[in-house]
Amino acid sequence: MWGRTDLLDESVEMVKHRTKGEKEVLEESTGIKFEESRDGAVLITSIEVDENGEKELGKKKGKYITLTDLTVNPNDEESFKQLEKMFIKYLEEIHESISLTKTSKILIIGLGNATITPDAIGPKAIEYLQSSSLTNDEGNVKVVMYAPGVTGQTGFETSDFVEAISNAFQPDLIIVLDALAARNSERLCKTIQLTNTGIHPGSGVGNQRKEISEEVYGVPVTAIGIPMVVDGPVLYADAMEQVIHYISSKVEEKGKPSSALAVTPMVSTKKSSIDHKVLQPIFGEWVTWPTEEKRKLFEEVFVGKNSSLFVTPKETDAWVDHYAYLLSTGLETWLASK
Amino acid sequence: MWGRTDLLDESVEMVKHRTKGEKEVLEESTGIKFEESRDGAVLITSIEVDENGEKELGKKKGKYITLTDLTVNPNDEESFKQLEKMFIKYLEEIHESISLTKTSKILIIGLGNATITPDAIGPKAIEYLQSSSLTNDEGNVKVVMYAPGVTGQTGFETSDFVEAISNAFQPDLIIVLDALAARNSERLCKTIQLTNTGIHPGSGVGNQRKEISEEVYGVPVTAIGIPMVVDGPVLYADAMEQVIHYISSKVEEKGKPSSALAVTPMVSTKKSSIDHKVLQPIFGEWVTWPTEEKRKLFEEVFVGKNSSLFVTPKETDAWVDHYAYLLSTGLETWLASK
Amino acid sequence: MWGRTDLLDESVEMVKHRTKGEKEVLEESTGIKFEESRDGAVLITSIEVDENGEKELGKKKGKYITLTDLTVNPNDEESFKQLEKMFIKYLEEIHESISLTKTSKILIIGLGNATITPDAIGPKAIEYLQSSSLTNDEGNVKVVMYAPGVTGQTGFETSDFVEAISNAFQPDLIIVLDALAARNSERLCKTIQLTNTGIHPGSGVGNQRKEISEEVYGVPVTAIGIPMVVDGPVLYADAMEQVIHYISSKVEEKGKPSSALAVTPMVSTKKSSIDHKVLQPIFGEWVTWPTEEKRKLFEEVFVGKNSSLFVTPKETDAWVDHYAYLLSTGLETWLASK
Amino acid sequence: MWGRTDLLDESVEMVKHRTKGEKEVLEESTGIKFEESRDGAVLITSIEVDENGEKELGKKKGKYITLTDLTVNPNDEESFKQLEKMFIKYLEEIHESISLTKTSKILIIGLGNATITPDAIGPKAIEYLQSSSLTNDEGNVKVVMYAPGVTGQTGFETSDFVEAISNAFQPDLIIVLDALAARNSERLCKTIQLTNTGIHPGSGVGNQRKEISEEVYGVPVTAIGIPMVVDGPVLYADAMEQVIHYISSKVEEKGKPSSALAVTPMVSTKKSSIDHKVLQPIFGEWVTWPTEEKRKLFEEVFVGKNSSLFVTPKETDAWVDHYAYLLSTGLETWLASK
Repeated sequence: MWGRTDLLDESVEMVKHRTKGEKEVLEESTGIKFEESRDGAVLITSIEVDENGEKELGKKKGKYITLTDLTVNPNDEESFKQLEKMFIKYLEEIHESISLTKTSKILIIGLGNATITPDAIGPKAIEYLQSSSLTNDEGNVKVVMYAPGVTGQTGFETSDFVEAISNAFQPDLIIVLDALAARNSERLCKTIQLTNTGIHPGSGVGNQRKEISEEVYGVPVTAIGIPMVVDGPVLYADAMEQVIHYISSKVEEKGKPSSALAVTPMVSTKKSSIDHKVLQPIFGEWVTWPTEEKRKLFEEVFVGKNSSLFVTPKETDAWVDHYAYLLSTGLETWLASK
Repeated sequence: MWGRTDLLDESVEMVKHRTKGEKEVLEESTGIKFEESRDGAVLITSIEVDENGEKELGKKKGKYITLTDLTVNPNDEESFKQLEKMFIKYLEEIHESISLTKTSKILIIGLGNATITPDAIGPKAIEYLQSSSLTNDEGNVKVVMYAPGVTGQTGFETSDFVEAISNAFQPDLIIVLDALAARNSERLCKTIQLTNTGIHPGSGVGNQRKEISEEVYGVPVTAIGIPMVVDGPVLYADAMEQVIHYISSKVEEKGKPSSALAVTPMVSTKKSSIDHKVLQPIFGEWVTWPTEEKRKLFEEVFVGKNSSLFVTPKETDAWVDHYAYLLSTGLETWLASK
Repeated sequence: MWGRTDLLDESVEMVKHRTKGEKEVLEESTGIKFEESRDGAVLITSIEVDENGEKELGKKKGKYITLTDLTVNPNDEESFKQLEKMFIKYLEEIHESISLTKTSKILIIGLGNATITPDAIGPKAIEYLQSSSLTNDEGNVKVVMYAPGVTGQTGFETSDFVEAISNAFQPDLIIVLDALAARNSERLCKTIQLTNTGIHPGSGVGNQRKEISEEVYGVPVTAIGIPMVVDGPVLYADAMEQVIHYISSKVEEKGKPSSALAVTPMVSTKKSSIDHKVLQPIFGEWVTWPTEEKRKLFEEVFVGKNSSLFVTPKETDAWVDHYAYLLSTGLETWLASK
Repeated sequence: MWGRTDLLDESVEMVKHRTKGEKEVLEESTGIKFEESRDGAVLITSIEVDENGEKELGKKKGKYITLTDLTVNPNDEESFKQLEKMFIKYLEEIHESISLTKTSKILIIGLGNATITPDAIGPKAIEYLQSSSLTNDEGNVKVVMYAPGVTGQTGFETSDFVEAISNAFQPDLIIVLDALAARNSERLCKTIQLTNTGIHPGSGVGNQRKEISEEVYGVPVTAIGIPMVVDGPVLYADAMEQVIHYISSKVEEKGKPSSALAVTPMVSTKKSSIDHKVLQPIFGEWVTWPTEEKRKLFEEVFVGKNSSLFVTPKETDAWVDHYAYLLSTGLETWLASK
């Protein structure tokens, strides 16, 4: 886990932060097609990059879908059910060019280290799938499922493992489930990402041999991921932004008669624009830097350092269990329909 | 699990029940070489079957070693340490014809279903091995380790799994760890079995393709097993024998002045010979049948039935944990010496 | 676990094996009231013993309800749902004399050793209950829940634990969940037992102080148990009966033209009556003993011995999980209705 | 967890940051006695607050001992063994005024929520202790052990639980094991804290009734804790300090011929003093605030917000397991010596 470079996620972020005008330009530009929609509480972002887009944006050609429900929480079964419905719908969409039949063979791989709680989504989803109805192949597609563990546990490259089983089983489709590192602490545990561009498990050193993708195996690969941790620098830059917004809103409020009616700072400040002149004496020139630049500074400082810490929600075990179950039942329902 | 036909175990049983005279004959016979020795509380039985023996006895050519300590129990760390020492010694002996060096590659497979307690020894041993020093390959042999689960979970034949990984990794040796069904309730959890003749995972239907052995893969295969359950018919026949011995000893005692001083029946009766004439009115002709025949009757009656029940020690979880740990540390120590 | 003397279960067995005539007599007898009914696949036996019955039968005064579905299996969610409905219905019935309101306080105790699979139903049910909606007490009865573990783990008598918490919390009702030893291998994992007569946890030495009951605490105690293991002697006697029936049916078939069309012995033999004359030469006088007598012989032989082994279904983990979940959701639904 | 207000830890921090001169003054001041020593890699800080100190410092009267090994890591068994030795030594020291004998009774409570990984140290230590030699009381002190879970799981105040068991068992000493929130990310998983001043489990609302202490129960209470998580604001202020130091050292290096030979920033910057004049244009007036003030700002901004996230080491599961084992074997060894 953690290694997937989250192309998809960054693309989405890029889209989200553009203005309406920019979005229109983007839409008209060749190489990329994006759509945003909403279904109940779920925001769906679908991006398609073609060969032109790959060259221009440096993003791998393919489809990227994210399903986000910012209101979901581990005690809210209803939201999870709604998210599962969306998941099944977009499983169908992302595979629309692959015609699966009762004779199709599917290899499902749950990546990650089962002994590290936020990384256990893949292995746990496989555990659920292995006790599901998929194990008896009456009329369904033939499914083979493994949670290989990580290279440090098994002594074998995860991608070599997938290749070995793929060569033996000859699947028509490989589905890879994984926990991801989020680029944005807000989306932690709130998003399901689907892409048909494959995945780089492990430390993301960018070794081509390590990639699990159609290019490498000659078999379509769908990667499904849930952001479960957030890296330190991402978090610190977010925290710094919130401090700046907070001070900014405090300064603003001083002149207003409504200042007595203080609202929860985290919510109110989000939309306020920042008056740099007022803040610069306090925070210096730094305050004018874009978030991305602040993040880069944190990254420079913490390079190699914060590998030993991560930020994760308090109820990680519950989130992991819910998403592992959602992925398994979603896949089970979708495959049963084939 | 449960499927390994326990050739070794039966051979040992055969040897154990021969008289001294018979043993000498056996020793002189061509085709089989056996040795019994004792080291502390551990009884070591080593049997070697050659091609002649394979024809005559119908046992597969190869080496069979059993290490038995009838006194071991889950709270007795000392006995487990002693057993581990013996395990390491005989790991070396059973591999004496295979020269392993620092460049050797070893594939270790933990068979069994991790969700069924007495079948979890293989997976649990792999779990321990995966967090051992074997995962960093500084100077040690290169080791790759998996617990694939059972076919009903993964959708893939276990032997096909081993073959796929073996083809990709090209090991010099495959070691397979498994829980076994005992043919004798006394030896339950008291014995480690090693053989270089391979293993039939699963239901033992005798499908040649399913065998994990040197003949199939072209790579030496060492199977290491611990008897963890006992089949119903084996247990019932054992129980019936004990009833017969108990009644027999009761009848005998009646005529003795010492009959008031009753000893624990289970111990005393073991050695007493049975007077069939006295017992026949009570238990009928049946009492004269050899244990093996009684067992066959129970097997005939319970064919297909008791697949849903098994007999296991009360502290199964503790036994499983202890043996999984013993196997992992024994293998770790042995491999570190290469 | 294992220690509950299963009064209820024996009573039921007693009732079941009476003829219609005997049942009528029983019904008319003073001191005991019993009813049998069926709801779908679930057989419900309800027995009420009054003071006269307690003297005559030696069974403790109170209500005993068993819900049995012989067809249930771990892959059959529908049957479990049906069994849960019945469980909720009879939870209501067994508590009809206790009026629970929103201000009532209930102490739920899950007995058993979580590290021994078939004994883990109590602790696992508490685990489920602890993450249920019962933990927030909005409008529900106030519930306190513990799985204390067994005396050998905690160093404290389980009944002293319950007493300590009961004194501090002052509940209006104590509900105790436990795994039981079955007197009949057929009912293993197929039955839920409810009684308001309390429970003897642990080794059943009959120490009055150890009892968890209304008499001891002054608070109504409802015990809910699932038979999860069967003792050796019970199983051996059952096995012996099956051998006898099998031989009996074989002998019978010999004279019939239909003998070529062999049916599955386990099913066919159940109803056949046994011709003792034919079997006596084979099995001796023993064949004429009632099952209960054979069981007593096995018990005499195995006294103190088979404490180290038990018989349990292969899918114990799945059964335990299903019943723990059923108990937790059943209790949750029932308590939410108060 | 998380609720213990970490008096001890703050006191130590206070001591550590004083100059030699200040320390001497402190030593001479009435009301507090502190000692620092080193044994191998372990730094031992021992603070004793008397009644005067309690008034002056607002810290509760009693003993506070911290054992810190900044070099320890989950793969380093040797360091853990050394830390365990120190733990046993200071267990003895903190209890020197309590004379325990073979007839003494000790209640050990493992606080925390077993389903949240970094909070599971208490429950896991109890699990280890429950399968240790302490459960058979041959010649040892009599020990009773529980992991009650948290109020949100059980429906009962943890302190009420402890009181109920304490009333029933009448122990001579209560030992409480818990995971803590660190005030300093450096010490995360590197420190064992012991105090005889008791503990406030849960949210630290400061309810006197909730305290587990000698004052409340009339029984000596020893609290043993390991810092397992760090709160967001603590971490952010730490991160900001590191950014400031990093920039400061970069600016300094510019004028030096050695600037090409860049050292690892995290190490080098630690000792460099900061030139505020150079940094103020970049970071504003903020740069001159003491760390504690920056932390307070973060705390003000994130009040009520970051309750849903925590920072924990990547190998939390391994750390938890190691410390739970260390606490259990340390306590076992110490108690066996009584």
